[in-house]
Amino acid sequence: MAPRVEGKRKRADVAGSGRSSAREALLEAAGDLMAERKTLDISLNDIAARAKANSALVKYYFGSKQGMLLALLQREMAGAIAQIEHLVEVNATATEKMRVHIAGLINLYYRKRFVNELLFSLLRQSTPEMSKLISDQIVKPAAEAQRKILEQGIAAGEFIPVDPTLFYFTVVGACHQIFAGSFALQAVFDEEGLTESLRRRFIDHTTAIILTGIKAP
Amino acid sequence: MAPRVEGKRKRADVAGSGRSSAREALLEAAGDLMAERKTLDISLNDIAARAKANSALVKYYFGSKQGMLLALLQREMAGAIAQIEHLVEVNATATEKMRVHIAGLINLYYRKRFVNELLFSLLRQSTPEMSKLISDQIVKPAAEAQRKILEQGIAAGEFIPVDPTLFYFTVVGACHQIFAGSFALQAVFDEEGLTESLRRRFIDHTTAIILTGIKAP
Repeated sequence: MAPRVEGKRKRADVAGSGRSSAREALLEAAGDLMAERKTLDISLNDIAARAKANSALVKYYFGSKQGMLLALLQREMAGAIAQIEHLVEVNATATEKMRVHIAGLINLYYRKRFVNELLFSLLRQSTPEMSKLISDQIVKPAAEAQRKILEQGIAAGEFIPVDPTLFYFTVVGACHQIFAGSFALQAVFDEEGLTESLRRRFIDHTTAIILTGIKAP
Repeated sequence: MAPRVEGKRKRADVAGSGRSSAREALLEAAGDLMAERKTLDISLNDIAARAKANSALVKYYFGSKQGMLLALLQREMAGAIAQIEHLVEVNATATEKMRVHIAGLINLYYRKRFVNELLFSLLRQSTPEMSKLISDQIVKPAAEAQRKILEQGIAAGEFIPVDPTLFYFTVVGACHQIFAGSFALQAVFDEEGLTESLRRRFIDHTTAIILTGIKAP
């Protein structure tokens, strides 16, 4: 549902007020610069310049730079969370759902390499209130949806009994490490880097190992 | 082999020169403070105070703070790399070796939670020369040893054919994410945190999924 709301807001801006189009432009600029420069450490001036906006608007819209980073994280994750929550409800086997979920996670990290780093960085630096907000809005819904798919599979005899908490970390780690450690692809393994063909090989590899790893005999 | 060298050096210090005992004390202080404060961002003054040494010695022994962090990483990883290189040579099935390797990785991250973060942080900030040093001395030997165990298992018909490069990231990620994201254990999953009993459950869980995931039918 969330991406549709974003879409509506964007269309409304084009037609009119300009208020949230500057807000959107700031978020988009921050995300683009993080992706291009491969770091979360982007100055407000650079973000404002890219967005063709005054950097004082950051304070106006988001309260602080951290508030802007949180809004960016929420914006980037909204689609992914809506997707997995939808996946829980569709009429398919748990094995098929888990396959789509794992591929979706890898695709998310492939397209938005900074989201996981941003999530951890915000959690490390944030107040207890912001931590709770991130947990409640982002980590919990994703973990909960994944747990439901796992339980569907266990109940249907497709999966062996697996601890859903530990499994959450297994899946996120197995899908994310190649992006976190992508420097090593070239430096250690003579790969070209995070190419489209590597993304496809990695989806096949990861879904095969995890789905075989939890398959009921 | 590496830990034995460290041991010898330490014994010599007790007997005599004091030179490398201050060096060792600085490394130990840096590692302890990172573990205690759960951040890599420790000032030279704090490290020197903990080591009861003059902070100018950092420059003297390591050239720079970054040089000291590299020495710390090498020191912490030496034992783990010697272990997996030894594991390749022992007389055991590839399945047994892989089980010991996975448990060893989890134990390393459990005891030295900052090593992986330190590795990535140094690689991100470092010169091409330092990057190459870290790749050659730490990542390559570990990846190479893991590849040999995988190939032994494929040749013996214990494992299905698996891409060793992709598998490297699968294993490191699956073992490491729970430590990188340990905040979520309490905030999202109502676990107590990274306890000894969780460590054991996590070793059983991870070895079961990965070994089943690559097992030849």
